Parts: sequence; C-alpha cells; structure tokens
Amino acid sequence: MPIGTQGSVKTLSSEDLKDVGVRVILGNSYHLYLRPGHKLILEAGGLHKFMSWDGPILTDSGGYQIFSLNPLAKVTQEGVRFQSHWDGSYHYFNPEKVIEIQRALDSDIIMTLDECVSYPASLQRAQKACEFSLDWAEKCKKEHQKFNSQSDLGTPQALFGIIQGSTYPQLREKCARSIMDLDFPGYAMGGLSVGEPKTTTFQIVDMLCQILPRDKPRYLMGAGTPADLVRAVEKGVDMFDCVLPTRNARNGMVFTRKGKLPLRNAEFASDFSPIDPDCDCVTCKNYTRAYIRHLIQVGEITGLRLATLHSLHFYMRLMEKIRETIKNGDFTQWKDNFLAEYGSENEIFGEGRMES
Amino acid sequence: MPIGTQGSVKTLSSEDLKDVGVRVILGNSYHLYLRPGHKLILEAGGLHKFMSWDGPILTDSGGYQIFSLNPLAKVTQEGVRFQSHWDGSYHYFNPEKVIEIQRALDSDIIMTLDECVSYPASLQRAQKACEFSLDWAEKCKKEHQKFNSQSDLGTPQALFGIIQGSTYPQLREKCARSIMDLDFPGYAMGGLSVGEPKTTTFQIVDMLCQILPRDKPRYLMGAGTPADLVRAVEKGVDMFDCVLPTRNARNGMVFTRKGKLPLRNAEFASDFSPIDPDCDCVTCKNYTRAYIRHLIQVGEITGLRLATLHSLHFYMRLMEKIRETIKNGDFTQWKDNFLAEYGSENEIFGEGRMES
Repeated sequence: MPIGTQGSVKTLSSEDLKDVGVRVILGNSYHLYLRPGHKLILEAGGLHKFMSWDGPILTDSGGYQIFSLNPLAKVTQEGVRFQSHWDGSYHYFNPEKVIEIQRALDSDIIMTLDECVSYPASLQRAQKACEFSLDWAEKCKKEHQKFNSQSDLGTPQALFGIIQGSTYPQLREKCARSIMDLDFPGYAMGGLSVGEPKTTTFQIVDMLCQILPRDKPRYLMGAGTPADLVRAVEKGVDMFDCVLPTRNARNGMVFTRKGKLPLRNAEFASDFSPIDPDCDCVTCKNYTRAYIRHLIQVGEITGLRLATLHSLHFYMRLMEKIRETIKNGDFTQWKDNFLAEYGSENEIFGEGRMES
Repeated sequence: MPIGTQGSVKTLSSEDLKDVGVRVILGNSYHLYLRPGHKLILEAGGLHKFMSWDGPILTDSGGYQIFSLNPLAKVTQEGVRFQSHWDGSYHYFNPEKVIEIQRALDSDIIMTLDECVSYPASLQRAQKACEFSLDWAEKCKKEHQKFNSQSDLGTPQALFGIIQGSTYPQLREKCARSIMDLDFPGYAMGGLSVGEPKTTTFQIVDMLCQILPRDKPRYLMGAGTPADLVRAVEKGVDMFDCVLPTRNARNGMVFTRKGKLPLRNAEFASDFSPIDPDCDCVTCKNYTRAYIRHLIQVGEITGLRLATLHSLHFYMRLMEKIRETIKNGDFTQWKDNFLAEYGSENEIFGEGRMES
C-alpha cells in the first residue's frame, strides 16, 4: 500500500494510482483528523469520494503519528493527549475517538489504537505499551461492534488488531495471543521498522507468523525495501505499507531490480538511458535519467512525479510477481534470483514510516 | 503557449500537455543555458527529445530573464554581462551567443536578443534599448543565416524579431518599421505586460497591429489574462505566452468562464462541486473545490497539479474557441458575450512574465 497521508499519494492523482496498478492505499487518520477534519470528509461522502478513489482504503488509527510527531504526548490508560504539529492546539484520542474518525472516513480496513514505542525500549516500557494497546484494542472492537462494524455511511469495515512488544520475543508472543483471543479479521505487526537491526525484525516476524492464523491477513506495518518485502513474504506476511517508493523518489532515489539508483549523482547528468531499460512504466518509456535528474536538481515538481511513478510501478510489479510465483509454486527460486540481482541493503530497519 | 521554464511546464509531463491539447510550448534560454546547459541538451538530442515533447517549441533569447533577474546586468552595444541567479557566476550573452544557445536547443521558433526596459522608462532609456535591440536583431539574423537558419541538428528554425519602445507610440512605430525592414518570418511585441496600465498596452498593440504584415504571426509576449487574450486577438494578435494559468494555479487561483476562483478562500472548504461544473477537464470530472483546496492548504503537490491541469485546459479551450469563432465569422459576437460573462479584471498589465 502506498501512503496517502493527507488524502493524496504525494505527487499523484487517483487516475495515476490506477494506471500504476495500485490496489489498496493507506490514509493517515491523524493527518486527516487535523486537516481537513474527518467530519468534513464525511460530509464529502467519505474518503473514497473525497479523493475520487474507488479502490480499497486502509486507515491507521493515528497512534503511530501521535507518538512520532509528539514526543511530549501524554499517555494514560484512558487515551493520549497531544498537540497538533500544525498549530500546537491540544487534541485527545482514545479508542472510541479513533473508531469515530475511521467510521467517518469510511475506509475499508481500520486499525485499533496502539502505542508504538521507539527503539530501543526497556522491557518495562514495552510491557506498559502492550498493556495499553491490548486494552485499547478491546475497547476499539467493542465500540466498532456497537455500530455493527460499519462506517457512518454503512460500509462494512474490517477492524485489524495490532501486536506490539518491541524486540522482546516473549512479550510479542504474549501480546499476539491476547490480541488473537479478541478475534480480529486481520492482524498487524506494529512497532517494527523503527530503527532496530533487520535480523531482529525478521526474528520477530518469523515467530509471529508461526503463531498468527494462516487464513487471516498478516500485515507488517511500515515495511520496507524491495528485499524486505520479499523476505517478509517468505516468512508469511501478506500486507505492507511503506513510504519508501514515494518519499525516496522525491529525494531522487529510485528503485530498480539491481538496487537503488541515486539520480542526483553527477554520473547521471549526461546519462540518456531510462531509469531501468527493462521497465515499462510511463517514466521509463519516455524520459531519461539525465532529464529526471535535471528536473530534481532545479526543483521541478515534474521530476518528483516522474520518479514517484517509476518507483511505485516497480513496487506494484514486484508484489504482482510475488503473488504470481506463489501461485505457480516457484516463489523460493524466484526469490533467490531476485535477492542476488537486487544486491545488499542497509541492515537497519525503519527508513520510512511516514510521508512528511 | 504555456511556459516550460526549465524543461518542463511546472507540475506537468509531456503526456499531460498532449492530453490538455497544448500545441506549442515556450522554453527559457536563460534558464536552460544555466541548467542543465544548452550543450547537454544538444547532447541529449535537443530540447524536444530531452523533455520528450514532439510538438513545436518556441525559445526566448534570454533577454527578458537577464534583465528581470539581474538588476545589475551590464549592458553595452556588444552584449550583456550578468550573474547567474543560482550561484552568482558571471556570464555573457550577445547576439551570436543567443543564436548558439537556441541552435543547440533545437527549438522551432527562436527569438532575437532584445533589451526589455521596465515600466515606467524615460524616453531616452527606451530609445537606447530600442537601438540595442535593433542592432542585436540584425546581428542575430546574420548569425542565424550563417547556419542556413537551421539548428545544430538540422531543424529549420524561424527567427522572430522583437519590437521594443516602451509606452512611446512614435518610438514603437519607428522600431517596428526598422525591425520589419530586416524581414523576419514573425514579429513579437516585447516590453509590454511589465506593469503598465492596460489602456496603454492596448493602444500600443492596436497601433502595432495596423503596421505589422497581416500574413505573418504577431506575438504579444508575456500576455495575459483570458480577457486580455480575447481583446488582443481582436486587435490582431496571433500568439501569446503566459505563466498565469500555471503559476496562479499553484497559488490556488484558477480560471473559469466566470472569472478567477480563489480556491484558498474559506468558502470553498466544504464546496463539493467541481471548479467549473461545465468544464470537461480531468480535474473537474473527478475532483471537488473542497478537495483541491485541502490539498493546496496542506502543501500537497497533487493539488498544484490538479489546479494547473484545469487552468491550462481552460486556456487551451479558450484559444480553440477563438480560432473557431474567427473561422465562422462570429468572433465579435462571441467576444462580447465572453467578456460580459467573465467580468472585470485588474487594469494593470504584467501579472506574470516568468515562472519562478
């Protein structure tokens, strides 16, 4: 899922998303609650209608943004008090409030309120966050059921539970089992991709995938690079959201099957080949590295957009290929080839959790 | 002609321009010379190939930008010394240089070097600028003929002469006759739309259109609003370039048949109708005023792009309508209706001469 933080995937329109083959997009409740406001979006007929997107939308609960944008947010068992990053005004989220917001947004998949601790976190800190997240998950479910699990516009909404527990395997397992006891239609692994070593991430993911039911979607929040996605799928993950294809593109860093391409580098100034000669996206069919580099260097929006279109196309084709090879039974072989061609990456997780 | 200052019409790709029905675009020699450099663009196969645009391109000579971006530019009969607005480095343009640059860019219509004085200018100042512009026009023509009036890539290029003379009718007429003696395939009225009262602009335009040959294109540089275009066509103008549809759109000001619409205004926050209900552009078919306003308010690039697509579509349809009514012989009647519906405008010319 590409990230539509404030009601658009940055630089793209809904027509572009369809052209690139995007299936589900993610909207940020925190951002949409602050501007333009969830009530205005409800008045517009929901987020689908507001942004003219008729595909599925997943909204987060806002928890991640509260904690990452508000280091001084006050958390109690009842909820979280925080200040708007726009104007410093005070706001309060609790389980009932995030359900209210997401029901107004009319998204198709909605998330429970959780507390995402940063890395590293003490065991005590992580335990406390788990307790709150678990309590809030239960309250979210109760609140959602009050409204027959539907949005304000009568759309059926799937409420996913989120597993926290930082990098502590035992805590993760305990949290997972408690969340599973609440019986959600899908489960998310939260609190990863926040700066921990990748070996740790994958240990947790591996462990959780062995516990979580096979017949329900497993969603690894905030991941990841192309190689991360491939490795996580191997463990059993079904869903991802990440800003990397879009945010990195706007910084001039695009993805190819042979790894990342830093378009700002001087070597590309007179490189008149496409970003990826084998890519059939609109950018690669029409424009050169030199042209896109020039546009980005001089601050032209069109450059950000062309780079975004390419990288998102790359991610969508990657996931298509993964689905295809799983169906054909040759995922493992394809994966080995892909990782060999793609090359090595940073070994720290969490390059990109939010569009800013 | 929309303005492609640095090798792209801001926020749009060449595919977008085709979709909107753009026929000719303008490129700025000054900007392209500084970044990425005309030699790099020649190496890329010319500006058409560099930006993947196979329609006609007009390039200016860079004169206007030198004077507007470099108040300390040193002008002599030989040429102009100026500093880059990027890094303060010194550069020198003379008639031969601007032909060299435009031959490298491989544009279809190229312009002579001229000195554009600001408004108001003393008669003496305006006379001097006319003398230089006339001398440079002759030298440009000579230089261009040396190369058989072709670009470095063998493309035939039409070199247009530019008439200066500020707001002095006699000086304008004298300059026009001298430029016409040099026999260019097209004539531009420069040094207008720089802040003078509109009545003055139209007096000059009217006078010049009575002198300039009817069988050659007449180009009013840097104009204008929708009403300006209609009025100038009535005088006999054939060609325009202007940043208004694109730059104003990025500031949230879009054009409709009923005048300008300031989308940032609070009244549009919950206005779920399209910018113009009668418009069939991609923006009006899919998005509301409230949505575009929200995107622009929170700084989302997609908002700038959707607004740009609308306003450029509006300008292109306006010019189509003008051509159609001229052919049908009912331009005058249509014009009266259009101006009545469009309403009044600022009476100062020169809102937008350059994308910045």
